Order: sequence, then structure tokens, then C-alpha cells
Amino acid sequence: MSDTTGKTITCKAAVAWEAAKPLSIEEIEVLPPRAHEVRIKILHTGVCHTDAYTLSGVDPEGAFPVVLGHEGAGIVESVGEGVTNVKVGDHVVALYTPECKECKFCKSGKTNLCGKIRATQGKGVMPDGTSRFKCKGKDLLHFMGCSTFSQYTVVADISVVAVNPEAKPDRTCLLGCGITTGYGAATITANVQEGDNVAVFGAGCVGLSVVQGAKERKAAKIIVVDINDKKKEWADKFGATDFVNPTTLPEGTTIVDKLVEMTDGGCDYTFDCTGNVHVMRNALEACHKGWGVSVIIGVAAAGKEISTRPFQLVTGRVWKGAAFGGVKGRSQLPGIVDDYMAGKLKVDDFITHRHPLDNINTAFEDMHAGDCIRAVIDL
Amino acid sequence: MSDTTGKTITCKAAVAWEAAKPLSIEEIEVLPPRAHEVRIKILHTGVCHTDAYTLSGVDPEGAFPVVLGHEGAGIVESVGEGVTNVKVGDHVVALYTPECKECKFCKSGKTNLCGKIRATQGKGVMPDGTSRFKCKGKDLLHFMGCSTFSQYTVVADISVVAVNPEAKPDRTCLLGCGITTGYGAATITANVQEGDNVAVFGAGCVGLSVVQGAKERKAAKIIVVDINDKKKEWADKFGATDFVNPTTLPEGTTIVDKLVEMTDGGCDYTFDCTGNVHVMRNALEACHKGWGVSVIIGVAAAGKEISTRPFQLVTGRVWKGAAFGGVKGRSQLPGIVDDYMAGKLKVDDFITHRHPLDNINTAFEDMHAGDCIRAVIDL
Repeated sequence: MSDTTGKTITCKAAVAWEAAKPLSIEEIEVLPPRAHEVRIKILHTGVCHTDAYTLSGVDPEGAFPVVLGHEGAGIVESVGEGVTNVKVGDHVVALYTPECKECKFCKSGKTNLCGKIRATQGKGVMPDGTSRFKCKGKDLLHFMGCSTFSQYTVVADISVVAVNPEAKPDRTCLLGCGITTGYGAATITANVQEGDNVAVFGAGCVGLSVVQGAKERKAAKIIVVDINDKKKEWADKFGATDFVNPTTLPEGTTIVDKLVEMTDGGCDYTFDCTGNVHVMRNALEACHKGWGVSVIIGVAAAGKEISTRPFQLVTGRVWKGAAFGGVKGRSQLPGIVDDYMAGKLKVDDFITHRHPLDNINTAFEDMHAGDCIRAVIDL
Repeated sequence: MSDTTGKTITCKAAVAWEAAKPLSIEEIEVLPPRAHEVRIKILHTGVCHTDAYTLSGVDPEGAFPVVLGHEGAGIVESVGEGVTNVKVGDHVVALYTPECKECKFCKSGKTNLCGKIRATQGKGVMPDGTSRFKCKGKDLLHFMGCSTFSQYTVVADISVVAVNPEAKPDRTCLLGCGITTGYGAATITANVQEGDNVAVFGAGCVGLSVVQGAKERKAAKIIVVDINDKKKEWADKFGATDFVNPTTLPEGTTIVDKLVEMTDGGCDYTFDCTGNVHVMRNALEACHKGWGVSVIIGVAAAGKEISTRPFQLVTGRVWKGAAFGGVKGRSQLPGIVDDYMAGKLKVDDFITHRHPLDNINTAFEDMHAGDCIRAVIDL
């Protein structure tokens, strides 16, 4: 037990007061955890496109003021009544996809989505319907059940998992979203097998992690597709066998044509890591007739729709998707941390930028610059 | 060996001289089968929506003059050189989805589509690029590798399978398309399991056969959705547990809402047997979050596209499709005929209309009347 147990903690956080404005570094009050809640001292957090999407104001479900951030690692400061899965001092990763192990979803054995706190998480409050953050007399909303852009946060106990304490938290934070999302999409959702041909659209953190998962499974071709030629070097580094820039193909050759030709009929698995619905269609149509599976990982802008001719599916292609790579956070994330520690999964290489919390707005600018894979914030 | 072996046979056939005109009953010449070809005396054929679709002229790949029909059963009259899988006198069903057992597709173990003669079949000719039908000095095209609207037809040896000779050919002909397509979609493509909730959109021959497959698998709820209230009785007869007419739902309640409510969150499997792209979307969105799978069986009109928000897939729904129910014709159709003989699969009940070849145009009219499930033509 620490001397802050049961008390409100005053600390620094990056607050999003309103949409499309820079974050504001504020002193906020973080209330003690209630029953089945955990207060975490966040040490490091990644900055992900989903944070930027909500901050931009385009997300129809975005609400303000809010403490953003969902890719964080830290140490348990205190726990509320009834918490048994983590204890004070545990090294933990926050889980925006919780795992209660009790609901219809968790018990189905078919999905990593958990239904238990979905409604309140979506509204930006704790499961009891209230907030644990206050600033200048106002309640701040929680974000994706995590809110890691704060030196302290409170999450539901089902939204946190203890991991190997030997793993550095400035690395494990990235396993809270992007890397796990890509790696899991390849190894769990798609379940790529040895000899499969794979195409990955978008060579950011998620896409490059799909590449890692495909390489781990000994895929034959791992083709990275990106409109930024600088990503070729990144693709090579993470295990891609080929790189295609669709903007430099000969006149009249589509990216679908190119991939079908490179794989003698189409890919066994394709992954959209762009969030662009036109790319999602290409990813589907580049799949092999009869069995190719396309996995949508990217988050599309509000109101955007995917489309294709139904013939694509009738002739055996499968269109699916994944959130958090199909990974069950409490059951499977510790194993992924162990994979990292055993050298099976690159994480360090993703960190291209690093900033103190005070400069977090710079990290959002980094993301749009093209040479950034992941910016890590030190709290 | 029959006395027609090696000779041209003159017989009656229904010829489609041009699009959007009635079929014309003609004397045609059917040439002897060449190497790896089989000449079949067709005894009975079903009339399917795909025949009507091509005849209408809307099918962009439709070509004329042609002998339509792809749901036929009969007896092998003679075989060309090198044919080993059937022999003269065998009771057979024609297969519009061939199975060569040698190509990349057949050997994949992942699909029932066969690539071997796809190109020539699509062009309406035999694998050597020529036709076996002549009428009034003109070559007639083949259709879907079958052309069963003729008293004699020639097909590739990989496009025919011998079945239990005890099974009546006026029944087995229907296993050449509609019934097998639905039954296979439920039991092979979707692989419905005991206790699953299933919704079937469209209660024609295919949809009612999905119902049969779901019942065979002991599905919990089998909900038939059709805008024709008369189909309720049919749905009940084949094992549906519920019937919903989406046009009679209360104002503001969509069919998706209704199905989600009836199944406490959505269906485990849904099937589109309508070919309507809006229905296909509803079928997908009526699936349970996390794991629901929607199977497209219906053939959409040319140029029509399916669409949805990618969020539907990211949250775990899967969109796929099937041709011929995922059934490998030569390997699996004999077993389906045996299921019929063992009373596991209703076939007789589908036959609502029956006509001699001379009246085949009436069968096309029957199809649009709404009280027709299947018309069988006696050749």
C-alpha cells in the first residue's frame, strides 16, 4: 500500500478541452479507484491515430473534455475493493479491449470483444457511470477505458493486465494497441500458415506488425503496399519480401492486378492497415479466388462504407476484420510481452520519436510527417 | 455400348436464339463426345433463376444462340476416349461446378471451385474450344458446362458424376443446383452447429434447402425472412422455427432490429438467397457481433454492389459467399443423393410444377408467379 491509497492524487495530464484544438497540459485530480477499479501510475504512452481521430472532432462518438490516450504502461498505485487480478506494484498495460471472462462474448471462445463495460466505456465514464478525473472543477471524460495521457489514471480491473516486470514500460506501452493489433491480426485473426502469400496495405506500426506476424508464421511472400517509398526500408527491416508503391505502377495496371500477378492468382491473406475504404476494397479483391481472406484493421472515417461486387465473395473470398488483433488482453497479452522479451517480436525499432508529456502536441504533428512510426511520451 | 455410339444424335432441345425471347423447341444435332467428354441422355431438368437471368439478356456474359439448363439428370449414352469416372448406363447428374481433382483449386482443400475448364466453360464451348451442338447449320453454344435443356448433351468428364441408380432422376436433377446449393451452404460453407441461431433470407428452393441443412445440424432458431406470406407454410414444412415478413414490421423497426431482438444480439449465421444487394447488407448486419457469419448465395444483377460500414467487420462479423454450396460435385454429390435416399433431405416436396420439354416456356412463367418452388421438365 502506498501513502496515496484512498486519496485523490493531483498530477499532470494532457486534457482535450474541445475538438480540433491542441491538448492542454493541466493539473488534474484523479480520484481513488472504487470497487473493481485500478489506479495506475502511467509511465509511458504511445500516441495512436485513434487519439488523433477523436481529437480532430471527426469521430461522431468523440466527447469533450476528455483525457485521451489508450496505449499506456505503468505501475499499479492502488486498487479498489474486490480487485484480484492485479496488485499494487504490478507492471501493467492498459487494455482498451477489456476481458471480463464472464460475458457472452468472453465465454464464446470466438471473439476478443468483451461486452461487460461496453456501454459506459463508449460514453467515457467508469462502469458506475461517473468519472474519476476532475480539472478546474469540471469532470473530465475517460477515453476507451484507458486515458493514458495522464500521470495517473483509473481503469476497470478487467481493463488492465500485469506483464513481465523485466519488460521496459516504454516498450510494453506500444503493445497496448498498434503492435499487438497487427501481430494478432496475422497470428490470431488470420492465422497465417507457412507458405501463405500475404499483402499488407499501409506500413505504419500496425502494418509492420502484421509483417512481423506473417514472418513469424513463415509466410512465403510478404508484400508491403504503401504510397510512401520511404517505407520500403521499414518493410525490409521487419521481414517483408516485397514492396509495391501503387502510385508508380505502369498506366493501366492496378494494385489488384499487380498483386494477383505477383502471387499467381491472388493473396491467401491481405490486411488493410490504412482505414481507407478504397484500399479495403483493393485488399479484398487482391485475395485469391476460392479462399483468400481479407482482414480490415484500419479504422475508417465516420460514414465511409466499403463496397464490392458480391461475386467476389460468391467466388470464395472472405471479408472480415479485427479489433486489437483478435487478442484477448488478459489471457494473451502477457504471452506477447514474453515473445518480445524472447526476441521474437520487434518493438524497440518502432520508436522513432520521443517526447515528455509537456510536448505531447508535437507527437501529434510527428504522426502526420510520414517518417514517424511511433512517438512515445514519457510521463 | 449403344448403337448411337460415335454417331451424331438428332434430338429435341429448347434453343435460346436470342436474349429476352421465348425458347424455341428445335431438332438439333448433338455430336459424339471427344476425348474426356461424356454424352448424356438427359431425362429431367430443373429450371433455375440463373437460366432465366441469362435468357433475359441482363447477364453481361450471356451469349446466344445457346442451349440453356444446368440442373439436369440422365443416363450416360456414350463416352469419349480416356473417360474413366463414368461409364455407359450410369445414372448421372451434370455439374456446373466441375471437379478435376488436379488443379490448384481442387488440390487446395479450401474450395469447391475448379479452375481447369473455367475459361472455355465461360465462353460456352467445350474444353477444346468447339461446340457439340448444331441447329439449322449453326453452332449452338453450351451453357455452364451443362446445357440440360436438350434430350442429349455433351459435357466434360469432370462435369458429371454418377449417383445411386435407385434415386429417381426427376429428383436428382434438382440436386444439380438449387437444393445442393442451399444444403451445402449451411452444412459445408457455414458449417452450422447445434444450438446456432440462423436466419435465411428468401424462401425459394435454395433458401428452404438452407433451412434443411440448419435443421439437420440442430440449429436453435431457424428464422425465414420473406416478403411473401405464403412462404410461411413452406418454411414450416422444411423445419423453420420462425417466419418474418419484413414488410409487415412496425414502423421504425428494421429487419435487422427484429432479428437482433429475436436472437438476443444477432444471428450466428445468415444466408442471402435473394440476390438483392440490399438484402445482403441486412443479412450481414443481422449477424451477432464478434462472430456472426453471413453467406451470400444469391446471384446479384450485373453491376450491383454490396456495401456496409467497415465497423461491421472490425467488430467481428464475417462476410463470405458460396457457389454450389461449397460442395465438390464428384466427391460429395453422391453422398447428398444418399442423404436424400435415407430421408435426411427433402427433395420431392420442392417440385411444384412439371412440364414436358415442349412447354418449357411455361416453366419460366411459373417461376415469376410466386407459388412455384421448382418446375421440373421431362425430356
